[in-house]
This record gives sequence, structure tokens and C-alpha cells, in this order.
Amino acid sequence: MEFDRINGSVVAPQGFLCSGVSCGIKSDSFKRDLSLIFSVTNAVAAGVFTTNVVKAPCVILNKATIKNPFARAIVVNSGNANACNGPDGPADAARMVEAVSKKLIIPAKTVFCASTGIIGHKLPIQKVEKGITQAVETLQRHSPADAMLGIMTTDTVKKEIAIEFMLDDVTVRMGAMAKGAGMIEPNMATMLAFITTDVAIDKKLLQSMLSRVVTRTFNAITVDGDTSTNDMCLILANGMAKNPKIVNPESEQAILFEKALTFVCEYLAKSIVSDGEGATKLIEVQVRNCLEPMKVAKTIANSPLVKTAMFGNDPNWGRILAAAGRSGLVFDPISIDITLAGIKVYHQGQPTDFDAAEVSALLDSDEVKIIVDFHQEQGGSCKAWTCDFSYDYVRINADYHT
Amino acid sequence: MEFDRINGSVVAPQGFLCSGVSCGIKSDSFKRDLSLIFSVTNAVAAGVFTTNVVKAPCVILNKATIKNPFARAIVVNSGNANACNGPDGPADAARMVEAVSKKLIIPAKTVFCASTGIIGHKLPIQKVEKGITQAVETLQRHSPADAMLGIMTTDTVKKEIAIEFMLDDVTVRMGAMAKGAGMIEPNMATMLAFITTDVAIDKKLLQSMLSRVVTRTFNAITVDGDTSTNDMCLILANGMAKNPKIVNPESEQAILFEKALTFVCEYLAKSIVSDGEGATKLIEVQVRNCLEPMKVAKTIANSPLVKTAMFGNDPNWGRILAAAGRSGLVFDPISIDITLAGIKVYHQGQPTDFDAAEVSALLDSDEVKIIVDFHQEQGGSCKAWTCDFSYDYVRINADYHT
Repeated sequence: MEFDRINGSVVAPQGFLCSGVSCGIKSDSFKRDLSLIFSVTNAVAAGVFTTNVVKAPCVILNKATIKNPFARAIVVNSGNANACNGPDGPADAARMVEAVSKKLIIPAKTVFCASTGIIGHKLPIQKVEKGITQAVETLQRHSPADAMLGIMTTDTVKKEIAIEFMLDDVTVRMGAMAKGAGMIEPNMATMLAFITTDVAIDKKLLQSMLSRVVTRTFNAITVDGDTSTNDMCLILANGMAKNPKIVNPESEQAILFEKALTFVCEYLAKSIVSDGEGATKLIEVQVRNCLEPMKVAKTIANSPLVKTAMFGNDPNWGRILAAAGRSGLVFDPISIDITLAGIKVYHQGQPTDFDAAEVSALLDSDEVKIIVDFHQEQGGSCKAWTCDFSYDYVRINADYHT
Repeated sequence: MEFDRINGSVVAPQGFLCSGVSCGIKSDSFKRDLSLIFSVTNAVAAGVFTTNVVKAPCVILNKATIKNPFARAIVVNSGNANACNGPDGPADAARMVEAVSKKLIIPAKTVFCASTGIIGHKLPIQKVEKGITQAVETLQRHSPADAMLGIMTTDTVKKEIAIEFMLDDVTVRMGAMAKGAGMIEPNMATMLAFITTDVAIDKKLLQSMLSRVVTRTFNAITVDGDTSTNDMCLILANGMAKNPKIVNPESEQAILFEKALTFVCEYLAKSIVSDGEGATKLIEVQVRNCLEPMKVAKTIANSPLVKTAMFGNDPNWGRILAAAGRSGLVFDPISIDITLAGIKVYHQGQPTDFDAAEVSALLDSDEVKIIVDFHQEQGGSCKAWTCDFSYDYVRINADYHT
């Protein structure tokens, strides 16, 4: 389903302000490295956090904060992940939250924090605290540009979106921004996504929707199979659009809201993959009529051999089949079909008589689709997204400085 | 434990002959592409085969053949995997076996076959049959060189070994050759290994030993996490050394034989990893005092981020920690130690005060060790091996022609 796009990212919904400043964490002093998102009134919040056993202090803190009924702000720094750096880490995360609480005169338990960047280094907390003062002073509604820049690390493009739609004859809005380029795989891997909306909705319902949507979108993407210690997706809903509050999960309004959330999250998820380190193309893996579709889709999407083949525009159905074969799914190789860039290349246990040069030319595109149909009765379907594996992926990750 | 190396690979043990010929499967007509290993007397056989759901006809055939009490020969072609190519595949695998059976005048049920190379193409079976005639005519004992060449595909070095040791005052021998460079991960991924020995040993005992040893050696290596349709490890034991037959699994002789088998398989496994596509170094991942050591070791060894860091000589403990954290193991990040190239880099929840330039210089080596100690009570230890991820990995796999 398509929605009408509008400008404004996280400040498109009513009652949200944002800012982004340079506080001196990043070595280039012109680069934004601290962002703030603020709701002028109480919002309900929902969140999904990394499943990595090694969790950054900000994740641990937010998992407690989200139990409170209301939220007001999200503070984010980039350039330093404030993770795996000893006992100062949790203390500094708490100081970030306290600084926001004090400057905005809101309870600390309504403030979320997030950090992204290099791990194992102490956060320069005094710089961050000064930055928070400046971020509070510059909160505004007319542009999300500085806030977007303040959460970016190796990202090469901005990932943001806002939409507008009708709920019970009331115009409502949803806005979002995200960061993430390398080390991306499901389960919230070095990925941050912040979503705002002026819709009035029940907190518990919002959480169950977000969990479901994240599974089909952010957790369906992978760049290199790795997950980070800091990942999270947060949504704040402040009800300022004054629609009748959505409380019934079966209602038309709830269904429409979830579609909108899916639209926004899928857009951001695909933007992250397209900006995968060294990526030259977005790869959509569709698995159909399969008893364990996501398991198979992720195994194919994570295969370095499939990803290098796509980089080389090679219609290598064999690598796709081999990846499916080791995914854990039990299936009969005779009954699967593989379609590459719209051309069926494998059918009834052997390659079709396809024109390799033609398929290769079709694969030379910004977006390619791999479709694998298992024809299993009672099987389901899913999509996963990844990018190709290029020389630049190796260059970026071998040159990255610890 | 170390064993005395001798020359001769698979023909070092008594009673084994081999040959390797060019039958015209590979486009370069000077390249060997068909090999034969023959035992002059009945041997007992054991085997481990790919766990990929998509299995090549040769694997399916051998899984039936291995149920017979005795084996005599192994025929292998390279350049064409005879897999995923429709109904001709199983028929052609059977024809390979029949040709060997007829020319050597031995029962078909004592002949194993293996194929490696490109998948999805019909095997030129008439060329193969002519090649088998020639291979039978050229069987000899003085050199394994042609047989080794006949099983190679993208391999850049020969992988072969032979050892000699004493069992009950009798001199016995074990020889082996293997192929594999890309698409290597556990579970016998595009890897072939053939082991011969003149030891007298019970067939059932041999199978249980081989299964155990493969788990700790060939299944502990990974180049890119992929597994192939054709992989196998076979051992033939013909008893010609005339040692008292090993039947008791607890006997001193059984224990020594298993150590010898481990020595041979570990050598070949590490040779395969060192020759991983584009590899510039061998990486040994040691996991200690851990409740699920192999799961963690494989997750670290398969992480593209860890592998690119090692290519760049980057002491990036954070990527190792993040990989451990998503492996599925539950652990406390505070209690783990990470040692890189002999230097402890992470301890008590934060990086140590190590000299990054010094560790980087130590990582600039042909062989590097990553040691992760979880200090979990009742935990076990294991080793896994992988190679780094280089520009050449991408080049080889993007340029490979389907």
C-alpha cells in the first residue's frame, strides 16, 4: 500500500521538535554528532532493541525507561557507541539522560538515549553535556536536517521519510529517520530508527504493532550478518492529531496505522540496505510457498557467494540453491523454481535454457529480485533485503580504524 | 601430537594405486580432470557426506555403497559437479561407477564416485568413460601427483599428506589428499578428502572415529559459510600392514589411530583454509571454557567484519565480541577475555591498554590466533579455522562464470 509522502521527517507530525549540534565527539568539528527529538506533550512509546547478548548501556537503560507510561525525548550521539568501555559506560548514559531531563525540565524516566559509533572508548561526557545544552536551546520544527546529520556514522545518504494519511476523518502524520550502513542484520544491528507520530494510540497496542512490523522490515534486512550492541527502533506517539484513540487491534484504524508503520519502516530498511557499505545494488529475496520462509530468505541474503555473484551480475542459481539447501529447511530440490531479474533460471531440478548474457544484463541494475518458490503446501511467503558484496565492502571494513 | 611425515600421499600405505588423467572435461586439455584410487585388496570404508539438502547424485550413490562390507576404488572427476542437472545426473554417476567396475573387474558396489566443479551442466559421460579406461591403464604406486591434480578446481596448492607410525610393533601408514578452496564451511562444503591406510580396523569403529574427527577438523573450518552439494570425506582401510585388527574402541591402538586420523585431517583442513579464495592468512579461533564452544567459534570465524579486520591487520576486538554476542550463547560480557596474536586486548568489560600498532604488526602474519575465554564453569574448548576476506575473494567470486 502506498501513502502520501510529505516533508519534515521526525518533525512532520504535530508537537515534535528536533535539533542537531556539533559537540566535539567526531574528529571533524563541523560534523553534527548530537541530536535531540522532543515531544511538546506526553507521548506513548514503544521500542525494539538489539538481541545481542552484549548490550550497550543505552539499550539497558531504555529497556527500563520504556516501562513508564509516557515519554518526551530521545537524545542520540554519534561517533562513540559508549559500549564495552567499563563502568563509566552506564554512568555516562545516565548522565546524558539527566542532562536532557534537567535542561528540558522533564522527568528523567521520560528520556531515551542512544549512542552509535566506535566501541570501547570512554564517552567525552562533558562535551556531550555541553552539546545537550546547545541542542535544547536550538530545538525547532522547521527542519530535521541537523538532527538527521547528528545520528549518522558511515552512512552516505540521509534516511528519512514522512507521510500523511486520514484516520476517522482526521489528518494524521508519521515521520522517521534512521541510520545504519555496515554491520547490519536483523535484530537491530547497528541500526537506529526513530519514528514520531501525532496519532493517539494505546501504548500496549503500539508495542505489539512495532514488534510485528520490525520483524518484517528492519529484521528482514542484512548487510553482513552481524548485529551490534546498540541497535534500537523507537516510536513516540503523542496524540496531538486528536483522532479518536486507537485501542482495538482489530479496528480498521489499527489496521491502517499498522500499514502506515510498515510503509515507513520498509522504506527505511531498504534505504539502509541500499547504503550498505560498498553496496552497488539492492537485492530483494522473495521466498514463496515455503514452510520456513524467513530462515531461507536470510540464508540466501547472507551468503557471501550469492552477494559476490550479484556484484558480478552473474546469474548463479547454483549458489542460491546451495544456500537454500543448507538453511535447515527440508525440501525436494526437484520442486523448486528460481527466478532472477524476472527470468526463470531453474526449474524441475535443472537450469532452464535461459540466455545467460540476457539475465546478466538485467542483473546490472540498482535493484534486483531473486524469487525462490518451494511449492510447499501450507507454506508461507516473505521478503528479505540485502546488498551485494563489493571490493569497497572489503576496503571500508579492512581500513576501519579500531 | 606429532607424527612422522613420509612421501606418497594416498599411495604411501601398502596396496594402494592411483592415477590421474585428462579426459577433456576442463577446457584446458592439458589439465588433469579424472582421478582413480584403487586398493589391490578389499578395504573397509567409512564416509561423511554433505548435510546440504541438495545432494549431488554421487553423494546419494555413495551413501548406499558405503553400506556394503568392502570397498575397492574411488573415481573422481573435476570440472563438472554432475549436480542439479536433471535426470541425467544420477544415470551418469552410475555409469562412472559401472565403467570402473567393468575395467577393474570388481563389483560396482565396491566403487565410490565423486564429482566437483560447475553445477547444472550435463557431465560429458563418454569422455569420462574413455578417461576411466585410461585411468585404469595408468594405475601406479610411485607418485600421487597426477591423482592430486585430477581432483583440483580453484585450488592453488596441492593438499596432501602421508604419515607412518607403529601399532603393536607393526609399521603402518596413512595417506590423504583433499581439494577445496571456496565455498568451504563445515558439513563438507565443496570439499573432497580421500584417506587411505593399510591399518586393519573394524568398519564400524572406523566410521565412528571418522565422524568424530571430521567434526573437529573439516567441520571446524569455514571460508564463507557456504556448504556444497557434493562434499565428502572417505577413508579406505585395507589391512595390508597386518597389524592385529583394531576392534576395541577403548584400546591403546584405537586411541593412537584416532590421533593419527586427527593429525591428517587437521593438516588437510588447515591447508584448505589457507588456500581459501583470496586468503592472505590462516586464522585460528580458539574458544575456551564455554558452554557452546563450536557455535561461538563458528560465528566469529564466519563474521565478514572479523574477516575483513584480519585482512586489514586491525585489532578489532569489538567485532569479535559482537559476533560472540549474537552467536546464541548466553554469557556475561564482563567475564570474557579476548587475546589477539598473543596480546590480551579485552578484559573485564573493556579494552586493555594495549598498543594497537604493536598488535597490528603481529597480525600481519600468515597465521594468527584469536582466543576468546568465557570463563564459564563446566564449559568446554574448541578450535575453528578460517581465512581472511580480501579484495581477491570478491574478485574471484564476482568473476566466476556460471
